[in-house]
Amino acid sequence: MNRRMVAYFVGSVLRIEAMLMVVPTVVSLLYREKEWVYLAAATMFSYLVGYVLSARKPKNMTFYTREGITSVALGWILMSVFGAIPLWHGVPHIGFTDALFETISGFTTTGASILTEVESLPKGLLFWRSFTHWVGGMGILVFVLALLPEASGDSIYLMRAESPGPSVGKLVPKVRSTAKILYEIYIAITLMEIVVLMITGMSLYEASVITFGTVGTGGFAIKNVGCVAYNSVQQNVITVFMLICGANFNVYFLFVARKFKEAFKSEEVLSYLGIYLFAVLAVAVNIRNVFSSFGEALHHSFFNVASVMTTTGFASADFNTWPNFSRTMLLLVMFIGGCAGSTAGGIKVSRIVIGFKTIRKELEHFVHPRSVKILKFEGKPIEHAVLRGINVYFLTYISIFAVSVLLVAFDGKDFATTLTSVIATFNNIGPGLEMVGPFGNYSQFSPFAKYVLMFDMLAGRLELFPMLLLFMPMTWRRQR
Amino acid sequence: MNRRMVAYFVGSVLRIEAMLMVVPTVVSLLYREKEWVYLAAATMFSYLVGYVLSARKPKNMTFYTREGITSVALGWILMSVFGAIPLWHGVPHIGFTDALFETISGFTTTGASILTEVESLPKGLLFWRSFTHWVGGMGILVFVLALLPEASGDSIYLMRAESPGPSVGKLVPKVRSTAKILYEIYIAITLMEIVVLMITGMSLYEASVITFGTVGTGGFAIKNVGCVAYNSVQQNVITVFMLICGANFNVYFLFVARKFKEAFKSEEVLSYLGIYLFAVLAVAVNIRNVFSSFGEALHHSFFNVASVMTTTGFASADFNTWPNFSRTMLLLVMFIGGCAGSTAGGIKVSRIVIGFKTIRKELEHFVHPRSVKILKFEGKPIEHAVLRGINVYFLTYISIFAVSVLLVAFDGKDFATTLTSVIATFNNIGPGLEMVGPFGNYSQFSPFAKYVLMFDMLAGRLELFPMLLLFMPMTWRRQR
Repeated sequence: MNRRMVAYFVGSVLRIEAMLMVVPTVVSLLYREKEWVYLAAATMFSYLVGYVLSARKPKNMTFYTREGITSVALGWILMSVFGAIPLWHGVPHIGFTDALFETISGFTTTGASILTEVESLPKGLLFWRSFTHWVGGMGILVFVLALLPEASGDSIYLMRAESPGPSVGKLVPKVRSTAKILYEIYIAITLMEIVVLMITGMSLYEASVITFGTVGTGGFAIKNVGCVAYNSVQQNVITVFMLICGANFNVYFLFVARKFKEAFKSEEVLSYLGIYLFAVLAVAVNIRNVFSSFGEALHHSFFNVASVMTTTGFASADFNTWPNFSRTMLLLVMFIGGCAGSTAGGIKVSRIVIGFKTIRKELEHFVHPRSVKILKFEGKPIEHAVLRGINVYFLTYISIFAVSVLLVAFDGKDFATTLTSVIATFNNIGPGLEMVGPFGNYSQFSPFAKYVLMFDMLAGRLELFPMLLLFMPMTWRRQR
Repeated sequence: MNRRMVAYFVGSVLRIEAMLMVVPTVVSLLYREKEWVYLAAATMFSYLVGYVLSARKPKNMTFYTREGITSVALGWILMSVFGAIPLWHGVPHIGFTDALFETISGFTTTGASILTEVESLPKGLLFWRSFTHWVGGMGILVFVLALLPEASGDSIYLMRAESPGPSVGKLVPKVRSTAKILYEIYIAITLMEIVVLMITGMSLYEASVITFGTVGTGGFAIKNVGCVAYNSVQQNVITVFMLICGANFNVYFLFVARKFKEAFKSEEVLSYLGIYLFAVLAVAVNIRNVFSSFGEALHHSFFNVASVMTTTGFASADFNTWPNFSRTMLLLVMFIGGCAGSTAGGIKVSRIVIGFKTIRKELEHFVHPRSVKILKFEGKPIEHAVLRGINVYFLTYISIFAVSVLLVAFDGKDFATTLTSVIATFNNIGPGLEMVGPFGNYSQFSPFAKYVLMFDMLAGRLELFPMLLLFMPMTWRRQR
């Protein structure tokens, strides 16, 4: 293990976090809030520790998968610890565990909250809380990597751990250039949504905060009733941007590169939209009597299915009170999640599509045992390593899921709350059902259950393995 | 598709079923019950149809995977349809759907019941109801195969579809001889339990019926309160026999062959007992305040965890009212199920163990990317085809599970009932939680939901694929 390189990586992450924290500090100062000191203190503290860790460049800048994985896991944990400082000191009656929960929920773009009352909180802190969604949406380690031209090694792995999905398609031959293009697309979408929301009548502050929650597919809001507070035009704008950010960003790259034909043929995005529209219709028909007209039912289905499937977690209505079929349908799309290469969580559409193709191939194999068929995705044969990776992912996913439910069950909450709290955090959605429904929150859990759910949020965001490896002794053993 | 051969197979299954139905008919006559006519009529009807289907031996006795799979699926469905006749006519106020549900539940050794009152029913019918567990426990098609010396082809596949587990180990080189040995062991265990239960004071009739429910890991009882009616010695005897029948029968073969060393080293059986003991202790500690002493809590944990893990479904106490942690732990072992090569359902311990080994290998691969390690199970390297089969099994399992939950949710029952009704039928257990808890039943579901659950019981018993293939057009297309 090249520990120097890991320290250097993690230090750089903290330095960048410090720079990012300057933004909410300025917001806080502009609104003349006394809580700016906590933000400023966290900024300095984060920069200081980051500086100490990364002051000396390691002589050996080579890193392998092991270093990449450890850096990702440690980087995200430390980033959350330092990011929790302003909330810990600035929000009344909040312990460190709750502040850390809220911050991990922010960075992992989960949006699960332990706060019952947000409207009275200072604007600077709420800005930082939502800004974590934006920062976490794209990942920060790939950004660090882009700044380190001397580093050499398995940089693709770093990207793989931070970018959701079964296989990272490099858009251009170099990882660094790929990262740069993705960040540019991300910033462009962000600016676009802020502008559109301002046109519908929001202030710059509110438009920015809601945009961070949307494009990061996070879901923190700044009203106690969440997105119910907005009119239906604003809700529709948010729906469209949630869908945009749950789709594979490669498609936007193809648009920019004027490869329209390829862009419109993306198997993953088409499946994503197909599943979405099917779920929207099924839910709308099922909830038609909950609302005064079918049009209204369709509107709320449109919004909430998009919110849950893209794992954002906004709500335009209390879907916890909807009929059981709709609630089950929402749970199902929670598991599916958005596309690979998006900011969304969940299992990812590409894994689901490839999974179904694997099943179909197996069935065909029973009927025609001697036929040899190659599985294809997006028109290309799927590499054996990718297929194996997906299978192991499913196994690991089920295992972490089962153990988490068992551990959270110690709290003795009702069945639906226990189950959906794990589903909603592990898939980085936010709200579940019953006590953790869209108008409930996570404050009633014991600290133990909260730490289990924090682990799940990080494991879900970092594609399972980095968080598991962090706790295995073999990761820390000296290189053989 | 060699349709002649399929018809011949299915016809033979019905003829054997007719012969087996003679037993309950005689029981009914001995007790001088008027319902013997329904049993006798079903016997004759079954024999007649079986005779018509299998009167002419097909010229071409060769069969491939496709024929094997179709025969298994069709055989089990028709066997259930004919087996439902006595219940349909003999039980008051029961429709065909409910009679079929009860019979499929019997043959698949699920034990999920739509009957609210069983004590008033005629003894002959109750005998047949429990006898279906015994018949379904070992499977009937392999038996048919053993009687057909002229058949040639993929007989191993037939066995694979009917025998639970990821890979069928042939104990001796020939499938037929293997089947014969397994049936002998099965009959020996059955006789042993009947004798032991009679020593504890049960009548021959009651001992036989409870034994069928135990060794088939089915769970139909003949008292309204189930196994609560028996004293703790009798409950302990049942516990031990449930555990015996949930273990891999290969171990008993090794005992018979005096290979004691190998028998005691069985990785699957040791893991099975390890998981069992861990769950028993965890549940006992959790429910210590539900009972008057820890000893009593341990006794009930011992019984009910064994019942649920071996997918039998007997209950010595209403575990639906236990604390949430225990209920969740029971759900977890429901999914795990018993060993491969046993009469139990569920995912099977061997698949779980191999799954965990796969995950560990993947984690090691991250740390030492160049290491090449071969996965072993029971001391032997796992073949690539078996590994692939397990992965596809998990994918298919999740898919059928998700779709079933969605379809059953149409009924609008509460969340725990909807979810656990699918868990309990798909894993061939019987009781779930809430409305389908150990003292609830399945009568309140709509016919649509009942047919979904029937499909799940058959799919769970026949290792998923035969039931899926039955509904695919490609299975029925002419051979290319």
